[in-house]
Amino acid sequence: MDLGRNYKKTNETSYALGASLTYELLTNKATNVVKVYFHSTFQKSSDYDKFINLCKLNNIDHELNDRIFNRLSNKENCLVIGEFIKYKTTIDFKSNHIVLVNPSNMGNVGTIIRTAIGFNVRDLIMIRPAVDIFDPKVIRASMGAFFHINYQYYDSFSEYQSNIKDHHIYTFRLNGEVVLGSKPCERPYSLVLGNESSGLPVEYDYIGTGIVIKHSQEIDSLSLPIATSIALYEFGK
Amino acid sequence: MDLGRNYKKTNETSYALGASLTYELLTNKATNVVKVYFHSTFQKSSDYDKFINLCKLNNIDHELNDRIFNRLSNKENCLVIGEFIKYKTTIDFKSNHIVLVNPSNMGNVGTIIRTAIGFNVRDLIMIRPAVDIFDPKVIRASMGAFFHINYQYYDSFSEYQSNIKDHHIYTFRLNGEVVLGSKPCERPYSLVLGNESSGLPVEYDYIGTGIVIKHSQEIDSLSLPIATSIALYEFGK
Repeated sequence: MDLGRNYKKTNETSYALGASLTYELLTNKATNVVKVYFHSTFQKSSDYDKFINLCKLNNIDHELNDRIFNRLSNKENCLVIGEFIKYKTTIDFKSNHIVLVNPSNMGNVGTIIRTAIGFNVRDLIMIRPAVDIFDPKVIRASMGAFFHINYQYYDSFSEYQSNIKDHHIYTFRLNGEVVLGSKPCERPYSLVLGNESSGLPVEYDYIGTGIVIKHSQEIDSLSLPIATSIALYEFGK
Repeated sequence: MDLGRNYKKTNETSYALGASLTYELLTNKATNVVKVYFHSTFQKSSDYDKFINLCKLNNIDHELNDRIFNRLSNKENCLVIGEFIKYKTTIDFKSNHIVLVNPSNMGNVGTIIRTAIGFNVRDLIMIRPAVDIFDPKVIRASMGAFFHINYQYYDSFSEYQSNIKDHHIYTFRLNGEVVLGSKPCERPYSLVLGNESSGLPVEYDYIGTGIVIKHSQEIDSLSLPIATSIALYEFGK
């Protein structure tokens, strides 16, 4: 799991590692693509021409370069890399939101993006400290859904809250007063979930409607991506 | 993620890596424990006495051994290792089952075990080829729920089917005829899900009731642990 090993948060560009991710990049964010790298063995692939044509169509530079694959990825099956300029997005303040408070695991954020897009929620808020959404590990775990999500970071929840007017806030916590699924939800909604280990900080006990996903006492909690996905599923009904 | 690097499927024993996993092991499967290893720095922990007492109470051998931590785990925060004899379990053929067909990712199986125990499903069937459930990576991802699950491998689904009488079989597939949650489920149930990449093989189109979890066209599928967890949540209502 040493994806994008030379990637740094301060870089201006990031990487889609692998053919299917790069394809999603080229078809969704072509104007941001700096360059596409192909491993020499990919020339034999039946998809090679499709990629070359996409590059030509969008006037994107490409090159055969085996060395960069050692530098950027240790996945043997990674034969295409798309380098792209990181971009800002615009949150839709009339739509439903997912709000992650201090998420720390990149794979989890990628998985949540994939599920959110699957359930038609395309606006992701993160309250700092939070993972760098452009880390190639996030992109990889999103399975390409990454290029469909709008994101926005805030330094505090109150800063986010000052930007929303009509949103119904649902805070997911073990002491929530409403069992998930027991009451109809109101739209647009903000589903607010805490850090992987620590959950939501105590001050969120006084924010919005507390929702609990009932589970047995034999586990401490559901994992963050599991809890978020169940929430997205139930609210998406 | 090089947990249990010296572990082999053919070994008679496996390992709980870390204090909280070893605690779950000691409190749930004490008779299977061969030995507990402590890293010397753990002696300073306020939990050290608790572990020593548990070992004494159950007549379990223990030792301080820093070298074994380098050999078995590369997690810096792993300071306790519980070695235990692998065990067989008995499936409850009157209860609800999760059936994983050809699961290939150890972390996913661990996550599914955690969620299943969370939703009171404690019987896990796996159709071969399938991951080795005793791999320390499965145990780690289960967060200790591992020691609450009953498991059974079968070489084929028909072999499993010949062992169940009253179970209602629900096969999760994109061409399922029933949308998850649109009809009440019948108990006891077997929730059947396919491999991470390939899903259920075509022959499952003719087995049980096909269930689809509706999602947008922008993703190919939900991930296996996400789909399984949503299924467990909905069927557990």
